[in-house]
Amino acid sequence: MDVMIQKFHEAIIKQKAYNYVLYLTGWDSATEAPHGSFARRAEMLGIISQEAFRLIICPEYQEIVNMLFARIDELDDVTRREIKKAKKALDKIVKIPENEYVGYQKLISLTQVVWEDAKANNDYNSFKTNLAEIIQYNKRFIKYYGIDDLPYNILLDEFEEDMTMKDYDQLFNLLKAELVPFVKEVIAAQKSQEKPFETAFYPKDKQMQFSDKLMNIMAFDRSRGLLKTSVHPFTWNTSPSDVRLTTHILENTVFSSVFSTIHELGHATYEQQIDEKWDNTLLSGGTSSGIHESQSRFYENIIGRSKEFWNTHLADMQAIFPEQLAGVTVDDVIIAINKVQRSFIRTEADELTYSLHVMVRYELEKRIFSEEISVDDLPKIWNELMVEYLGIEPQTDTEGILQDVHWSEGMFGYFPTYALGSAFAAQIYYTMKKELDIEAILSEPTLGKINAWLKTKIHQYGSSKTAKEILKEVTNEDFNPEYYLRYLKEKYTALYLQKEVH
Amino acid sequence: MDVMIQKFHEAIIKQKAYNYVLYLTGWDSATEAPHGSFARRAEMLGIISQEAFRLIICPEYQEIVNMLFARIDELDDVTRREIKKAKKALDKIVKIPENEYVGYQKLISLTQVVWEDAKANNDYNSFKTNLAEIIQYNKRFIKYYGIDDLPYNILLDEFEEDMTMKDYDQLFNLLKAELVPFVKEVIAAQKSQEKPFETAFYPKDKQMQFSDKLMNIMAFDRSRGLLKTSVHPFTWNTSPSDVRLTTHILENTVFSSVFSTIHELGHATYEQQIDEKWDNTLLSGGTSSGIHESQSRFYENIIGRSKEFWNTHLADMQAIFPEQLAGVTVDDVIIAINKVQRSFIRTEADELTYSLHVMVRYELEKRIFSEEISVDDLPKIWNELMVEYLGIEPQTDTEGILQDVHWSEGMFGYFPTYALGSAFAAQIYYTMKKELDIEAILSEPTLGKINAWLKTKIHQYGSSKTAKEILKEVTNEDFNPEYYLRYLKEKYTALYLQKEVH
Repeated sequence: MDVMIQKFHEAIIKQKAYNYVLYLTGWDSATEAPHGSFARRAEMLGIISQEAFRLIICPEYQEIVNMLFARIDELDDVTRREIKKAKKALDKIVKIPENEYVGYQKLISLTQVVWEDAKANNDYNSFKTNLAEIIQYNKRFIKYYGIDDLPYNILLDEFEEDMTMKDYDQLFNLLKAELVPFVKEVIAAQKSQEKPFETAFYPKDKQMQFSDKLMNIMAFDRSRGLLKTSVHPFTWNTSPSDVRLTTHILENTVFSSVFSTIHELGHATYEQQIDEKWDNTLLSGGTSSGIHESQSRFYENIIGRSKEFWNTHLADMQAIFPEQLAGVTVDDVIIAINKVQRSFIRTEADELTYSLHVMVRYELEKRIFSEEISVDDLPKIWNELMVEYLGIEPQTDTEGILQDVHWSEGMFGYFPTYALGSAFAAQIYYTMKKELDIEAILSEPTLGKINAWLKTKIHQYGSSKTAKEILKEVTNEDFNPEYYLRYLKEKYTALYLQKEVH
Repeated sequence: MDVMIQKFHEAIIKQKAYNYVLYLTGWDSATEAPHGSFARRAEMLGIISQEAFRLIICPEYQEIVNMLFARIDELDDVTRREIKKAKKALDKIVKIPENEYVGYQKLISLTQVVWEDAKANNDYNSFKTNLAEIIQYNKRFIKYYGIDDLPYNILLDEFEEDMTMKDYDQLFNLLKAELVPFVKEVIAAQKSQEKPFETAFYPKDKQMQFSDKLMNIMAFDRSRGLLKTSVHPFTWNTSPSDVRLTTHILENTVFSSVFSTIHELGHATYEQQIDEKWDNTLLSGGTSSGIHESQSRFYENIIGRSKEFWNTHLADMQAIFPEQLAGVTVDDVIIAINKVQRSFIRTEADELTYSLHVMVRYELEKRIFSEEISVDDLPKIWNELMVEYLGIEPQTDTEGILQDVHWSEGMFGYFPTYALGSAFAAQIYYTMKKELDIEAILSEPTLGKINAWLKTKIHQYGSSKTAKEILKEVTNEDFNPEYYLRYLKEKYTALYLQKEVH
């Protein structure tokens, strides 16, 4: 048995080495590789990916995993969790007939351009055949897996272990009942007025300077990471010793880079604070999409959009932009960064309405995988849901169902984790509030004490605990979306529904 | 036979894919990877390197190469050259006993720190044992190869195919006889005076802006490459579709980045202009160290330090540095960038004395591998050679024998290619002058026409021709170091020995 476990770990480390170089190439591709290099790169990486794939499907590895899985009760807790993960991943690969697997990969890669063109030309019809095929592939794959659960639950589980429609319905039903009317109330009360500083010119290098300052504030360990720019902001990591993030700069919208940076620093802080002891196991990295997003949303929204944060750091920003921010008060900033708007595009949505955008996608995915729904009907349903949840109707599919890349990549079941992240963040926040004097910490130069709390409670464990386990242990409760609603109501009531606040 | 050739090429492409990801990691390490990531990186790359190594030493590959080598006369010219290369590389690996190979790798890696410390503390004694061991390993390796040639010739061949001590002696004997006295003459005549603009403050971002301008002047294809900064400037490439370079910035020595950038652009232009048809063969990339260095030195010294170049481009530089370069004339620049000095450090040497520094190392290496010379005597010999060639004696080993990293890495036979590059460049230049109106081209906004000539004559062929073949075909002569001496004498006589020039 010990020999098998050792062989298993040797196999895992080898797989990790291949992933390491493939990941690193991905970082290079996303941040600086010259455009003309991609054809050659695809050829070279195709070979390395194939080598990596062979390590997983080779009979020796399958045998090790299957043998250890058969004796899973005899394993220690850590190895048991690893074997469960390995078995799950392996089953998904080996149960799908090879021709179907290859066909699907091909379809996904061809669909990228189809989707891009469809979005650019507001032409859903040119995309729907591919979309229908992708959906059919996924439905067949679910059948091949032979797991005894509802189809959509199996997809949801890919991104958030053990979370099912039951959990998500609990969240979204609450938002439907309470948040939808609350948003209407806030928008009616909100007197929106744009001040000149919000759209002044903030040069790229100065914005990077403030993002750099934000790294100090978040106590980011620069010896184990770095910040660059890219088209879409993202966080990248191979281990806690190498965690990198990107932001994007819009020179007339300074808060775009500010909150992209804080958001990604949330993800990055999580990854930097994971114990390195998990490096060579399958329990490395953040535990789930939802927990990851809870960390980025926590820092971005709960901390980064708070008055206490800007009381301390507006002066830092004014030192870099003395002209653009002359005479601007903390209240001005708070209003500018907490506007509530009915909008069509999810990625540009504000904190209060964001989850309603996610809800549109959740409801649609749920129906796609629970009923026999035609792709012809999806745009109409999308628009109806937008009216129901946000009170506005997209006039084009480009600003409707075609806006997101995810479905063209076959990612179904991922969207809901975005909303879950915000809800997790709020639940964790109310526990943190009991144990830390957050207001006092926010008056300090760095968020080090908050990082430390999150490291102890969540980050250090990597993937060795599930989201549900973490939530239960940290907050002493199962997932409870009421906290999310409470947080939003408290914050936005204070901002817009109580006259005396300003 | 065709099946064997196909199998050979499949093996080569797979090896290239591994080298591709290892190279890319190297680029990342040298330009941005955070310091704290290197331990994990070493672990991961160790695995991938081992996988790559196995591809070469596996019996299947050895069999293919040996079988094709046995029938080499039946192969087409391209495949024949590939098999020769593959066989040569393979023999060197398989003929060395594994324990010796591993021991040597270990010694080299341990010696890095030993050398760094020795250099920092001016303590040659703490380095000499390792140096002696490295030399002994190399002498044993040469015996294992069983090649019928003088030991040092076998090392020289590693970096410059078919070039032997006979060729190098031809070059260095000429320099000894003619250049050494000429340098004395120039230095005696030269009235050195430093003008304030030479050491003014040139901010980093502005220097990068001018380096960017230099990329335009050199007609660098940005869709297939990029420029960054690093501690030591270098050029990096995986194929003509991805050629990157770095420069380094000293804010009080603007010409340092200018000539680093031009030098690396010389290497980069060579790599960008190689025909992509060699990509999946062993004949990809520049053909030899000497030819590569000839391209970088040609652009850096012959073009970049010429009056014609600055007649056209000083205004570009003044536009970026209006204050620092106010009132500076082309003559001021020409004097500033063509100063001749007796100095101790090779990497800081000027164009005229540079090859004399190389000659010190060549003579020393020659004696190390031709005689039984004790490492105890090397510093003394080094200093004597410095006095003989440059007329100055190092007062410490730090500014003497300890200055270069190469020997601590086991690189013997590489130094002479630096001088060879300058000599090749001059020989090629005199042919180019007959076929192109270089002066007229230098008055144009870009060097496109010079690039085009070099592409046709040299670059496109990659490694499918040897340095000697290229030289013969381009200049219609065998290697002839007289051109190098002639070029230096013409240029520096005009600059310093003829009063009427200024």
